Amino acid sequence: MTEHANKPLEIDRLVPKTPCGLTVVITGNGKGKTSSALGMTVRACGHGLRTCIIQFMKGDLYAGEWDGIKQLQGVELITTGKGFCGLLGNSYPFKEHRANAQDAIQLVKEKIASGRFEILIMDEINNALHLKLVDLEQVLEILQSKPPLMHLILTGRDAHPQVIELADTVSEVREIKHAFRKDIEPQPGIDY
Amino acid sequence: MTEHANKPLEIDRLVPKTPCGLTVVITGNGKGKTSSALGMTVRACGHGLRTCIIQFMKGDLYAGEWDGIKQLQGVELITTGKGFCGLLGNSYPFKEHRANAQDAIQLVKEKIASGRFEILIMDEINNALHLKLVDLEQVLEILQSKPPLMHLILTGRDAHPQVIELADTVSEVREIKHAFRKDIEPQPGIDY
Repeated sequence: MTEHANKPLEIDRLVPKTPCGLTVVITGNGKGKTSSALGMTVRACGHGLRTCIIQFMKGDLYAGEWDGIKQLQGVELITTGKGFCGLLGNSYPFKEHRANAQDAIQLVKEKIASGRFEILIMDEINNALHLKLVDLEQVLEILQSKPPLMHLILTGRDAHPQVIELADTVSEVREIKHAFRKDIEPQPGIDY
Repeated sequence: MTEHANKPLEIDRLVPKTPCGLTVVITGNGKGKTSSALGMTVRACGHGLRTCIIQFMKGDLYAGEWDGIKQLQGVELITTGKGFCGLLGNSYPFKEHRANAQDAIQLVKEKIASGRFEILIMDEINNALHLKLVDLEQVLEILQSKPPLMHLILTGRDAHPQVIELADTVSEVREIKHAFRKDIEPQPGIDY
């Protein structure tokens, strides 16, 4: 439900004279990178744009967005992994994480080629690249060969400088403080 | 639609032993603050949690989230303003912006008191406080008197140090680069 209190006399509508497919990178060590990409998905839905979200590494731990995005029309989310490679408690070998991430790269290429989406989100790909689950050349090739009007969003900490170089908009989400440092457990809806 | 490629044998589900209502602040000059809050809304929907979004100042410029969130169950969004006070081209006087923001504060209190929401987002309130459309005491009172299990999310640049002090999780979204500096216009779905 959306309401307008104090509605202004006129509501302006921006329409770009030159539509342009952007490459957006959301990196940094703070909370709000995947959330930010999911938020752009909501925004895109309002404009009738279709978004595909490929989650690298994620897949072993339930996340609210898996069910939340089912309510949004034209959105497809695919998890491809078995958790964060190298993270304490993750028992899968590097080889398996790498194979999963390579599947994710293949999926990204297929979804771009399908022409069915205006926006493609590669969630945690920066991280996957940093952990060598995917290669720099693979990511650069995707950025360099994308359709001109398609938006790409890359999330995850430790974004590679050459990825940042190619991007149009880059934000670094810095942790100022985080509840888990006060031993507060992750809370549903906020943290996952 | 949500799919799992390479599905792990087991998908874990976190359940906090101690549920805790968090205060989250997303500030900074970069892209991805409101998006981040909208993303948490998607996540919350997946958990069956209800979110109320009060947008301070916004209201004069169409944003995709106004229609996007209509697809999400249990989400209410109310815009309360007439644009960014003091921004070039905004013709409304300070007094009117302040009156609108004061209405927004009243709405926030009503929505919290209603008990109908697990999450309340005050979009751009940091900014509204910085611009003196609301008072520090008003914001602190909301944070200090919130129900213990309710989550509050405050977005907007220039978050006040005392707000940061009271919050559990704070991220600063720093602009590394932005498409508009290359004279690329705001694009629907990404920027609005």
